[in-house]
Amino acid sequence: MEEAINRPEVEVVCISLPNNLHEEAVNLCCKHKKAVMTTKPLARNAEEAKRMLLAVEKAGIFNGYLEDLVYTPKFIKAHESVKNGALGRILWAKSRETHPGPHSDWFWDIEQAGGGCMLDLGCHCVEITRSYIGKDIKPIEVMCWADTQVKPIDAEDHAIGLIKYENGAIAQFEVSWTFRGGLDLRDEVMGTEGTIWINSFLRTGFEMFTTGKAANYVAEKAESDKGWLFPVGDELNELGYNHMFMDMFNSMEKELNQKKLSMMVM
Amino acid sequence: MEEAINRPEVEVVCISLPNNLHEEAVNLCCKHKKAVMTTKPLARNAEEAKRMLLAVEKAGIFNGYLEDLVYTPKFIKAHESVKNGALGRILWAKSRETHPGPHSDWFWDIEQAGGGCMLDLGCHCVEITRSYIGKDIKPIEVMCWADTQVKPIDAEDHAIGLIKYENGAIAQFEVSWTFRGGLDLRDEVMGTEGTIWINSFLRTGFEMFTTGKAANYVAEKAESDKGWLFPVGDELNELGYNHMFMDMFNSMEKELNQKKLSMMVM
Amino acid sequence: MEEAINRPEVEVVCISLPNNLHEEAVNLCCKHKKAVMTTKPLARNAEEAKRMLLAVEKAGIFNGYLEDLVYTPKFIKAHESVKNGALGRILWAKSRETHPGPHSDWFWDIEQAGGGCMLDLGCHCVEITRSYIGKDIKPIEVMCWADTQVKPIDAEDHAIGLIKYENGAIAQFEVSWTFRGGLDLRDEVMGTEGTIWINSFLRTGFEMFTTGKAANYVAEKAESDKGWLFPVGDELNELGYNHMFMDMFNSMEKELNQKKLSMMVM
Amino acid sequence: MEEAINRPEVEVVCISLPNNLHEEAVNLCCKHKKAVMTTKPLARNAEEAKRMLLAVEKAGIFNGYLEDLVYTPKFIKAHESVKNGALGRILWAKSRETHPGPHSDWFWDIEQAGGGCMLDLGCHCVEITRSYIGKDIKPIEVMCWADTQVKPIDAEDHAIGLIKYENGAIAQFEVSWTFRGGLDLRDEVMGTEGTIWINSFLRTGFEMFTTGKAANYVAEKAESDKGWLFPVGDELNELGYNHMFMDMFNSMEKELNQKKLSMMVM
Repeated sequence: MEEAINRPEVEVVCISLPNNLHEEAVNLCCKHKKAVMTTKPLARNAEEAKRMLLAVEKAGIFNGYLEDLVYTPKFIKAHESVKNGALGRILWAKSRETHPGPHSDWFWDIEQAGGGCMLDLGCHCVEITRSYIGKDIKPIEVMCWADTQVKPIDAEDHAIGLIKYENGAIAQFEVSWTFRGGLDLRDEVMGTEGTIWINSFLRTGFEMFTTGKAANYVAEKAESDKGWLFPVGDELNELGYNHMFMDMFNSMEKELNQKKLSMMVM
Repeated sequence: MEEAINRPEVEVVCISLPNNLHEEAVNLCCKHKKAVMTTKPLARNAEEAKRMLLAVEKAGIFNGYLEDLVYTPKFIKAHESVKNGALGRILWAKSRETHPGPHSDWFWDIEQAGGGCMLDLGCHCVEITRSYIGKDIKPIEVMCWADTQVKPIDAEDHAIGLIKYENGAIAQFEVSWTFRGGLDLRDEVMGTEGTIWINSFLRTGFEMFTTGKAANYVAEKAESDKGWLFPVGDELNELGYNHMFMDMFNSMEKELNQKKLSMMVM
Repeated sequence: MEEAINRPEVEVVCISLPNNLHEEAVNLCCKHKKAVMTTKPLARNAEEAKRMLLAVEKAGIFNGYLEDLVYTPKFIKAHESVKNGALGRILWAKSRETHPGPHSDWFWDIEQAGGGCMLDLGCHCVEITRSYIGKDIKPIEVMCWADTQVKPIDAEDHAIGLIKYENGAIAQFEVSWTFRGGLDLRDEVMGTEGTIWINSFLRTGFEMFTTGKAANYVAEKAESDKGWLFPVGDELNELGYNHMFMDMFNSMEKELNQKKLSMMVM
Repeated sequence: MEEAINRPEVEVVCISLPNNLHEEAVNLCCKHKKAVMTTKPLARNAEEAKRMLLAVEKAGIFNGYLEDLVYTPKFIKAHESVKNGALGRILWAKSRETHPGPHSDWFWDIEQAGGGCMLDLGCHCVEITRSYIGKDIKPIEVMCWADTQVKPIDAEDHAIGLIKYENGAIAQFEVSWTFRGGLDLRDEVMGTEGTIWINSFLRTGFEMFTTGKAANYVAEKAESDKGWLFPVGDELNELGYNHMFMDMFNSMEKELNQKKLSMMVM
């Protein structure tokens, strides 16, 4: 890994390795003074994350955390409405990510993954809900149910949690690897003057019925390819990747005062 | 106009002028050998369009017609499914664009606009439906109702048409400037093995209720800013602009063998 | 048939026989002075219908035409809103009924059925759209495309029609026995001040995904029993049967001044 | 009250009084041997409910608890699918009822109401979720957040709870009197083989846009009468009243062996 990172033409490293290798990769970027971006979750636990943050700050390198779901076009527009007061005082923010289970085997190994669906999916939900409530408002109490209902793993495959903030607002997350029916990504925000409902994947205005004569790719984690299907037009855009990387590169170019960058994804 | 087009730094001209100026602008691009792209509708009528096409071909310049709604991410994915046979033989393709009326005054002048909502909106619908049926299949019969029901104009503000193709498929368009409720963009394709329903604007998985405490931009041609609203996350992407210009520039760069182009929008 | 109708305990005859037997049954009701109700379509053609109407009027018996889809709870409420002016002046009323084909063999025999999907389904759509436009407003022009695209029959299996009314309003029907995906029942009304969209069957707020472990009845003409399904909670109520028969019996009791009736369905 | 209940022509008493009067009314029915039905919630607390139950059993009168939301046509059909195994083993059942606040003043008085939105709305959600999980499965753990976020009352106006059942299934309720946007009634059930989503009120396939030229009743607790509205066709049927009373009267007639009953609502 060090050899790859240290190649002179590499200026930016984008880490999308299994969770247990994030810290090591970040440390190598620090050592070789390469700009670094890490996919979610940042680390396997708070201690690891804290050490990584201190390391990049000490090294003085550009660093970014790639939390895509606060960069979806719908989230960005909804967040703006919330900040402008369209919903009044925010009382309740919910975020849900459930699907039939992760795409790689290492997720099932708690040593590599660091946890279950709460770490894998909850990191999105917590970031989304606290963004609606206000990132300067402190959480003061957390209540959570988690269980391993279906999958043959040590970690939880289903969890529901409530986070109480100091201003009285409540955040709620629902995460599961046991959901049948596709990738269910929904957010809801409730305030004294209104509400916002976002469906980012399973119901986006695109519906197809097919007898299955020709098998087609439908969408990430879609579980069927006949009957009624719900494709997503532009998945990368709907999932926030375009806006996330745009923002990341804009920040980096601004900080580094340069226009063109060579990135390595690992 | 000629002065602007003839400026040496201008390499590509993007025409988004009122319809009656499209031909003149294209002719100037021919004269000065500038690559040219024209927004929809291409011209005010078939004769004008034919003359323009012959002119650019004779001049040998790069030329493109910017029909955005066959570049929406949903259309692209749906079209792929149709080509792959997911719907079997296509029997019926519908396309609808209705809204409360156009954004500029010149649309109301039949001399400048060249027609009414059938020209302004129908150009989308015809291109969409014939793409689903197959662009090599010939239309053999057209039936149309059009009327001026509400607006104080000479042209029609509402039209419904049926186009029969030589393979027996039927295309249907519904266009109106009298619709109340926002910008309604919907397509439906029916085949022997399935169906596709696309809602491109009014129901895309984003719903908001607000008492109206803070007025917000909702979406193009949205008619209200309180009660239940249906914002669109990333309008340009949903309307196909990103994918359309990408395709256009890719084609141009390929044809012109160069990487960087300076475009003038007029 | 006559023997059954003439049984002394029979007071009301409800005819749901194949279309070619409607007139004969009605004539027997006239002869034996029994109240009569006929399911849709009333007859195989206008002449037959006219003769039946004159016959019941001459006989002086209670008679009713059972057009269920103007008795759905959604239609009733929508119609009230339209009458109260919520949509302003009505410009355009659409009604659609499409499904994969009828449930009985006699529909395929043009002699028994009297026609194709236009008669079978269009009778609903015409009644719905003229109710929104106003039953006292006269139609002045009709335009229609019809074809046999898929089914091995003499009659049309798909038709689209436009009906122009004397006040300038336009009615539109879309009927098909070639639709794949279930029973698609949708109405749309557009006026100068608003619009109404009704989905009576395929999307009523009830969604189910199942791997198909247990086969279940989903809804009339549903084409799949696994994947994403859209059951209908109370089909008879959604299709207007409860409200239709209630209205019919109320009328009859009022006319006949009696409280209890014995009905025979044939 | 006693005088009314004791009237000789009264055979059945349907109690829809404020919560604090339920017990007294039931006791009077016991005394005068009248069949009794009580609207939700049964009582202000468990003790009261227990006493009422013992009283009617001791008196030997017919007694019923009117929990309408397990009688909605959607619930009945969904419940059947669940029992037939369409979702496999049930893992998670959610139920939500939120709206802008109750219709009568006595709800704000904790002495009369006995509690806040958890009692008023949660009684529905608990009954719905335990019906999906199985009424013979025991709850073993409850976790709940509740707060008074907006309304000037002693009781909670918002609550979220989790109930763990002995078979590992989790039930979840979300209830609120602070929601803006209408009456939001949604249930979701997740199992190893599928999922069911029910929207009972705010999205039932009936959509209307109106500039508000004519004010119309939209639906219970709808907060606006212009812009995009979501009327409900047949509210009583959607809310389960028809099926609930049908079931109740069938039970009663069976038990009492009689066909006609005279009911007093109080």
